[in-house]
Amino acid sequence: MTTPNTMGPASRAALATNGIAATGIPGLFTSEDQGLDQLKTKLREYTKPSYSGEEVFGQFCHTAEFIGCPVDMAFEYAANVYCLEEFTFSLRNFNYMGGGLYKGIEALAKETVIYMRVDAYPDSRVVDHLCAWDQGEELWMRYHFRFLDAMPTLRRPGTVVLWSNCKHPYYDRSVTDVPSYIAQPRDRTDRLWVGDIWPNFYAIHKIEADNLKKILEYRFANA
Amino acid sequence: MTTPNTMGPASRAALATNGIAATGIPGLFTSEDQGLDQLKTKLREYTKPSYSGEEVFGQFCHTAEFIGCPVDMAFEYAANVYCLEEFTFSLRNFNYMGGGLYKGIEALAKETVIYMRVDAYPDSRVVDHLCAWDQGEELWMRYHFRFLDAMPTLRRPGTVVLWSNCKHPYYDRSVTDVPSYIAQPRDRTDRLWVGDIWPNFYAIHKIEADNLKKILEYRFANA
Repeated sequence: MTTPNTMGPASRAALATNGIAATGIPGLFTSEDQGLDQLKTKLREYTKPSYSGEEVFGQFCHTAEFIGCPVDMAFEYAANVYCLEEFTFSLRNFNYMGGGLYKGIEALAKETVIYMRVDAYPDSRVVDHLCAWDQGEELWMRYHFRFLDAMPTLRRPGTVVLWSNCKHPYYDRSVTDVPSYIAQPRDRTDRLWVGDIWPNFYAIHKIEADNLKKILEYRFANA
Repeated sequence: MTTPNTMGPASRAALATNGIAATGIPGLFTSEDQGLDQLKTKLREYTKPSYSGEEVFGQFCHTAEFIGCPVDMAFEYAANVYCLEEFTFSLRNFNYMGGGLYKGIEALAKETVIYMRVDAYPDSRVVDHLCAWDQGEELWMRYHFRFLDAMPTLRRPGTVVLWSNCKHPYYDRSVTDVPSYIAQPRDRTDRLWVGDIWPNFYAIHKIEADNLKKILEYRFANA
């Protein structure tokens, strides 16, 4: 199933430099220009005993989990949109609209629908859950999964799932230059807005990654 | 270039449940069983004002960065092994060994070679840099990149790069059940061991992600 572009040799000359050598680019931090003492200073600057929630989860939300089942089982499961009805906290009742698009409900918020598209790439075992509350024209809530074989990665059988998403500006109420199909539903006062829970996204994804792990491990062990 | 498995409809019946309904799996945390109060309690438990370095970077190391260049330019660059000679702090002088494998030097450590394989998946824009110090039989140091189009992701032109790696047990000197091709070079006293700097991996990757960003942005803006 894995057919990446791997075979070499790669060509040093084919690296697109646009005629600009790396040594001519300002601000690079490399061993040619920086000694071990400078590196250690930089490492101390970036390595901290603790990090604020904003530092860790301000712009990006990463979750990772080991799952005790074969990686192709995990990938196939996540690639089927209906898995969302099982492992998410509150996405339910998906129906196919056509063109790869599904419509379901978000039970976490009052009278809220969610549109979803699942892009799955078997070669790299990537699955993208691309979605949006309220409308299906612009799928700006984007959840990116990668399923890794745990054997070369962690020296044990199973799967590592990486799950990342980025803070699109629509999450943020203070961003006002948005289309009306965002502004109007965001202004509803009878429910929360998905962006209001951005600080809790890691928590929600941790809950849901735990669910995903439990479902796959239980079915693999007990079927 | 993007040809995922996307078109529906997916089949609810095709979701592999192995005859076990999700409702029969113990320990799931879902809206059917948990009210908003229980959810809020759980969110408070998982959402903290700060996180220790061990909590954030103990088992996984995630880096993410916006890059102001087209996503296919970033992907193509990272897919060419010779990019490593430019954006990493200290990997240099790669030569092709055959079979997709390259051998270079790790200037950060005394008399240390690194073996590298680059797997690139154009459809999902995934690039894996799979490598190991000292030997090329088992590439256990594995760096996973994903290049995302920033327009649907962050509503701006450019690229988001996600970069993750996992803490393989070979990094950890306290794991003693390892092959001799790990144990012997790990025991060398004339240099550091790559695992000794695991707590600094985020810092190193932040330095290198900054380099990657600067290289691509400078060349895109100035060519």
